[in-house]
Amino acid sequence: MVSFTCDYTEGAHPAILERLFATNLDQEQGYGADRFTASARERIRKACACPGADVYLLTGGTQTNSTVIASLLREFEGAVAAETGHIAVHEAGAVEYTGHKVLTLPAHEGKMQAGDLAAYLERFYADASFDHMVFPGLVYISFPTEYGTLYSKAELSAIREVCLQYRLPLFVDGARLGYGLMSPACDLTLADLATLCDVFTIGGTKVGALCGEAVVFPSGAPAHFFTTVKQHGALLAKGRLLGLQFDVLFSSGSPESGSGVCPETSGSSCDLLYFQIAKNAIDRAMELKQVFLSKGYRLFLDSPTNQQFILLPPAAASALSGEVAYEVWETLPDGRTVTRFATSWATTSAQVAALSSLLPPASE
Amino acid sequence: MVSFTCDYTEGAHPAILERLFATNLDQEQGYGADRFTASARERIRKACACPGADVYLLTGGTQTNSTVIASLLREFEGAVAAETGHIAVHEAGAVEYTGHKVLTLPAHEGKMQAGDLAAYLERFYADASFDHMVFPGLVYISFPTEYGTLYSKAELSAIREVCLQYRLPLFVDGARLGYGLMSPACDLTLADLATLCDVFTIGGTKVGALCGEAVVFPSGAPAHFFTTVKQHGALLAKGRLLGLQFDVLFSSGSPESGSGVCPETSGSSCDLLYFQIAKNAIDRAMELKQVFLSKGYRLFLDSPTNQQFILLPPAAASALSGEVAYEVWETLPDGRTVTRFATSWATTSAQVAALSSLLPPASE
Amino acid sequence: MVSFTCDYTEGAHPAILERLFATNLDQEQGYGADRFTASARERIRKACACPGADVYLLTGGTQTNSTVIASLLREFEGAVAAETGHIAVHEAGAVEYTGHKVLTLPAHEGKMQAGDLAAYLERFYADASFDHMVFPGLVYISFPTEYGTLYSKAELSAIREVCLQYRLPLFVDGARLGYGLMSPACDLTLADLATLCDVFTIGGTKVGALCGEAVVFPSGAPAHFFTTVKQHGALLAKGRLLGLQFDVLFSSGSPESGSGVCPETSGSSCDLLYFQIAKNAIDRAMELKQVFLSKGYRLFLDSPTNQQFILLPPAAASALSGEVAYEVWETLPDGRTVTRFATSWATTSAQVAALSSLLPPASE
Amino acid sequence: MVSFTCDYTEGAHPAILERLFATNLDQEQGYGADRFTASARERIRKACACPGADVYLLTGGTQTNSTVIASLLREFEGAVAAETGHIAVHEAGAVEYTGHKVLTLPAHEGKMQAGDLAAYLERFYADASFDHMVFPGLVYISFPTEYGTLYSKAELSAIREVCLQYRLPLFVDGARLGYGLMSPACDLTLADLATLCDVFTIGGTKVGALCGEAVVFPSGAPAHFFTTVKQHGALLAKGRLLGLQFDVLFSSGSPESGSGVCPETSGSSCDLLYFQIAKNAIDRAMELKQVFLSKGYRLFLDSPTNQQFILLPPAAASALSGEVAYEVWETLPDGRTVTRFATSWATTSAQVAALSSLLPPASE
Repeated sequence: MVSFTCDYTEGAHPAILERLFATNLDQEQGYGADRFTASARERIRKACACPGADVYLLTGGTQTNSTVIASLLREFEGAVAAETGHIAVHEAGAVEYTGHKVLTLPAHEGKMQAGDLAAYLERFYADASFDHMVFPGLVYISFPTEYGTLYSKAELSAIREVCLQYRLPLFVDGARLGYGLMSPACDLTLADLATLCDVFTIGGTKVGALCGEAVVFPSGAPAHFFTTVKQHGALLAKGRLLGLQFDVLFSSGSPESGSGVCPETSGSSCDLLYFQIAKNAIDRAMELKQVFLSKGYRLFLDSPTNQQFILLPPAAASALSGEVAYEVWETLPDGRTVTRFATSWATTSAQVAALSSLLPPASE
Repeated sequence: MVSFTCDYTEGAHPAILERLFATNLDQEQGYGADRFTASARERIRKACACPGADVYLLTGGTQTNSTVIASLLREFEGAVAAETGHIAVHEAGAVEYTGHKVLTLPAHEGKMQAGDLAAYLERFYADASFDHMVFPGLVYISFPTEYGTLYSKAELSAIREVCLQYRLPLFVDGARLGYGLMSPACDLTLADLATLCDVFTIGGTKVGALCGEAVVFPSGAPAHFFTTVKQHGALLAKGRLLGLQFDVLFSSGSPESGSGVCPETSGSSCDLLYFQIAKNAIDRAMELKQVFLSKGYRLFLDSPTNQQFILLPPAAASALSGEVAYEVWETLPDGRTVTRFATSWATTSAQVAALSSLLPPASE
Repeated sequence: MVSFTCDYTEGAHPAILERLFATNLDQEQGYGADRFTASARERIRKACACPGADVYLLTGGTQTNSTVIASLLREFEGAVAAETGHIAVHEAGAVEYTGHKVLTLPAHEGKMQAGDLAAYLERFYADASFDHMVFPGLVYISFPTEYGTLYSKAELSAIREVCLQYRLPLFVDGARLGYGLMSPACDLTLADLATLCDVFTIGGTKVGALCGEAVVFPSGAPAHFFTTVKQHGALLAKGRLLGLQFDVLFSSGSPESGSGVCPETSGSSCDLLYFQIAKNAIDRAMELKQVFLSKGYRLFLDSPTNQQFILLPPAAASALSGEVAYEVWETLPDGRTVTRFATSWATTSAQVAALSSLLPPASE
Repeated sequence: MVSFTCDYTEGAHPAILERLFATNLDQEQGYGADRFTASARERIRKACACPGADVYLLTGGTQTNSTVIASLLREFEGAVAAETGHIAVHEAGAVEYTGHKVLTLPAHEGKMQAGDLAAYLERFYADASFDHMVFPGLVYISFPTEYGTLYSKAELSAIREVCLQYRLPLFVDGARLGYGLMSPACDLTLADLATLCDVFTIGGTKVGALCGEAVVFPSGAPAHFFTTVKQHGALLAKGRLLGLQFDVLFSSGSPESGSGVCPETSGSSCDLLYFQIAKNAIDRAMELKQVFLSKGYRLFLDSPTNQQFILLPPAAASALSGEVAYEVWETLPDGRTVTRFATSWATTSAQVAALSSLLPPASE
């Protein structure tokens, strides 16, 4: 059984485990005051070309989103997100649990459009009774989105412009950041994010770590963010576990594990392990996409990242049954089934080939 | 530099790392639906002699406490705790952040007394305006306490009696549970806890894991506790990390790592790795206590577990400075300094010997 | 200047003020333990034909909604509402502030449809990852809706059926309940509501009181609802103010203030002051609607209650300017302006006539 | 039966009811945009000698406390209060419900001491793990306290000094403010409060209003406080009810209702109805205290305001039984009963005389 159900089916990149072994009995201080965390922070700042950034390491995605959002909002404010945004749907109301509404805008293949955002904000403040409503307090977008799509630099800049006009912090949820930045379709870099956002995350859990999300505040974190993290139950006693993982991921990968030339857009980050292994997921995803296209299947949308959304007819589902696992994403109004195949840092070409050998040509 | 500052200065027990390595590329489902978690749950149920228990694995202590407490309380209720209880002091208001007051009772060497609890509850319901106050909704105790002390079976049973009388769930925070159960002074077993509590935790972070707290509900968890965990940001995507660790910790340790005869009180649990390594901490702590006593130092209180609280005069502090790390706990009204020396599963006799060699005789 | 901006522009029905005067120096207990509250509760139970109902008197609408909703939901649950529901839009996130998401369904002239509700619930539980999402915990509807529309008995019963199937409490926000029940288009009675809902409110603020919303739990309130009310800051010290008002409103009105025959559907409640004065609002609203229709204006929708939504062209707006106040409700995509004219228990035919005399014929 | 159980047993001062009658059918805007509220705000600013103050009118005390406190605290902060403070005990956890801990200090006859506050703050920031604890975010005191006692100007200034040093806002809960300022023992004025506090309240409910607490922010309210009020369910639709009451209370009382010479300390505020009627309560309280003292009873503490705490033996309780109502406050460890007798703006000398005639001499 080969699984493409998600990008966190395997453990950690072996380099992380090796380092864990090598340093296991070193005595380190708790709560992020260890040497690994210090080093990881420095490496991340450097990769972001943002020496003044505040970097915090948290454990999981929902935890990170709700902690960051709660730290930025005042009590009468909510987070503006696309209606398909992770915080709006799949986080069990973690944001609302902290007292804040998620204010939703239409999604276009998972993306928020700057125009929709501007129109909403204009309408909001034009409404005579706006002070009876939840104030927009920050803008949340995912990069890549929940549908694997990417914001171009122009699109992100346009959203940034609207945010600046209304003085709203911009928060980019990068749970799959590596997979976005390594896509050939991406024209953004880590340094761009550090310039365009008020806070963004660098997802570890889905990109080679056992767990861990790095939170980067390019212009500094809210006061006492450490305590906020603790209050949200998000402070790991053995912070070394997070520090070590990001320290490894943001070190240079071994030359042999790199796959080809580093795309110019990503600049000097390319030799970091994080990006090298992310590139593997993209390469495998493009192979996988070709498998489906070449056999006559239709894409639900054309994703440039590691999540591929395929319209899978029953015959194909039968053929894969018991051999290849994937996720049933949604059933369209016309009855067709959208499935998601996710690759990861750990996906091999052999796994894609196994899928290919089982998949019959689309009979349409 | 040798550190006795806390019981989480090292990484994980090597058996955990070995297993991580061995299974790293196995594809597993996320969110606790992996094989390791299933196995760990089963092993924990067995060790607790409670086959019907619901077991959940969370990442950290504060997270676990606030999630469990919020899941048990109705909105108008608070958690009753000793004034020195971890939730009352050192969790940055995580419980209050979920909307619930921590109602404090006097602490006696860190312990709540059944008599104080009964008196408080009687007074509460006798007060004509009790319905203008926060209702007691559960009782929280730590085992061992924040001062390393232990409840005897009689003491815990007495608290249980009061809880039953007032229909209050009893929650035992076992962040250091192994160190409590392995103390020669302990007359309680895991099975006793499963009988006496409505929910208790088995701390992994401080007893050999990288992270992880097992939550045991002997009579079943609150409805949809999984979603509550998610909502609190406490659901780990790669639940295998937690499952694997508890699966290893609750497997039989290798015979050679056991240290002597298993005390009768702990019954058949004794051959589990979790308890074997916990016993090491206790043995080292008793050695360490002897070092201090034999040199004429005074204990702040006589702890039977892995945390030792010593009254350390300036001369001794000077002698240890730069060589041995420990925690300054508090300054007494008379100016004396209470320090805490913690041992762990990883502490060696050599480390205790190093301390001993540096420590001058108390000159009083 | 005549104002139709809302239904709370005047003070209280004179009978209330008279009773306030007459009893002002009586000494009464606080917090709802006064004689007036006891009597009001009894009168409301009788009017609802529900002798076992628990009745609480709160001060304002948003307060009442968030208190009731928080008392009914478990922490992982949200309130299902039409997207135009008051709690979803105009309550400044008061529900989210208590930690709960508002889950929205499409609105049809302000109403939720049973079919949409059933489809949503079916989809929710069919979703493989439903336990990563906020659980539907209760259904909230407004009667009349924010657009003045009414659920028929059949429509409400259909929603009730779905609620029963999924064991969801049904909460009817009756901030304008009197205006709904007195509409000639209404086929529901207070007793029907007590049969079909788990909790509903009887709005006082908009129907002749200075302030006050009665909360009726036909089958009993959640445990310690009194304390929940206090915790939400919703417990009035001089509860007599609320008790007295509802006691007067649910007493028989003087014969001369009744206007005509009581519609059969409302049964014996019709001689209560609350319904007599509500009927005035309906009668004036129908006069007002006729004024607009007879002059050739178009309704945005055909409301059977005291809120009338009119498409008002600029020429008419100019003619009324400075003389008649109303609310600009929204601007349609095609640029037309929807306005709201609200009548109340205090609106006079003379006020409607004043509007009529200023309103030019629609020039279309 | 004469009741001294609390200071809100009667309705409103007659001047309020008269004004309600006179203006009842005036059409006013909702939510505090009415003429009465504008006028009340202006009168309160003038009485406080603070023309730049922001003034909001809320309905009840617990509501006001939790709304103000939540608006001032950041999420990781708590409110520092005396352990007998109203928010710490009798508000059903309303502050915790908004996510914030109440951090308690020892109470001295109900009062916080500046020295205790300074010591706590010094210890807090000296603690190596202070960022694992709830940060002190504001200081809350009651004036008069729950025990009827008063801070002198020197005491309040000393607290203010500590607050300034640590940049903590100072919030004075003046639910009984009039009774404090009118006490002969008081050396503070409204203008002093406006100078020494960041926010304080002027209680109406206990001083002649049906309901209503004025919140005064001498240097301006937190941003969008209006929306915060709405979110807390504390925004009254018919804000005129609150505006009118404070407008009347802060108008000059009729000359004949004044009782003697205005004490110098209160300056020009003395001819305001609010203070005139407050003075009545003080005068009656001093009469009542004399009744008890002259008959040989002992005070629990010597309160200079309208709440008198008397040690009442069983014989006296029997004598009053069924004729005079009061509140049983607490039972002392030695078994004696502390009772509270409260006077108000409405208490008459005849009522005190009735008490006197029933009370037997203390037989001790």
